[in-house]
Amino acid sequence: MENCDWCNLSGEEKHFQVYESKSWSVFLSDEQDYIGRCILVLKRHCGSMSELIDDEWEELRNLVCKVEECLKTVLGATLCNWSCLMNDFYKDSAPDPHLHIHVRPRYDKPVILNGNIYTDNEFGHHYALNKSGDISSEDKEEVFIRLKEWLNR
Amino acid sequence: MENCDWCNLSGEEKHFQVYESKSWSVFLSDEQDYIGRCILVLKRHCGSMSELIDDEWEELRNLVCKVEECLKTVLGATLCNWSCLMNDFYKDSAPDPHLHIHVRPRYDKPVILNGNIYTDNEFGHHYALNKSGDISSEDKEEVFIRLKEWLNR
Repeated sequence: MENCDWCNLSGEEKHFQVYESKSWSVFLSDEQDYIGRCILVLKRHCGSMSELIDDEWEELRNLVCKVEECLKTVLGATLCNWSCLMNDFYKDSAPDPHLHIHVRPRYDKPVILNGNIYTDNEFGHHYALNKSGDISSEDKEEVFIRLKEWLNR
Repeated sequence: MENCDWCNLSGEEKHFQVYESKSWSVFLSDEQDYIGRCILVLKRHCGSMSELIDDEWEELRNLVCKVEECLKTVLGATLCNWSCLMNDFYKDSAPDPHLHIHVRPRYDKPVILNGNIYTDNEFGHHYALNKSGDISSEDKEEVFIRLKEWLNR
């Protein structure tokens, strides 16, 4: 779609793509409030899960399994929180949502990256909505490389 | 599983079942912070989406479509927020999660039930974590009957 930001991601935004399948792209999120947080974006412009076609639904299943295993293996996640919300699009007077799914890995132990310690203080509770996603660019790059290597191995 | 509350729901808890398929049950949530909020519970004890078998994944797709259409048609929902979190189980020293999925309908207009007005003040934003789910038993019963009738029509 011509005016959809998600259909027209810039090169910079695409830089953090860790994996792609036929129908989906997986990006490391800008927000790293939960280390390894990713977003699954359907390559086709489509507004809701109800409108997925057969192949896209089947691929989503494979991706859920693959990304969850990756986050557990590579970063030590205990579980993953999955959500498909799409609320931001509805701020617009003529909402035209583009399907995407968030995955936040949750940790019962701190994640250590380049000597920096990241703690999931809310473990066992709903993810925080206003948690700081501050992470050094070095640490983000480290997460990006680890996920990308594992997912494309 | 012998000790799993979700495998051993009481008659009272099952009262608010609005639909069941071969592998899944759909219940109207106790929390009605978003009117029509439901929970999809896998009938089998299984800890994550990654462990779903073929039929369960396919049925989930049908349920997502059916429940979303129901909430839009019956209650006027604008969209649905879907989430699979499972955090509460991880408060336990030996977590043994039982797969369930939350669906919160979101509304750009108030829902009116028996003359009572329910407003989605956060529309266009993430669902609130501490929103009051107060609803009269009469209004909850009204929602329950409407969803159950539509889903089983």
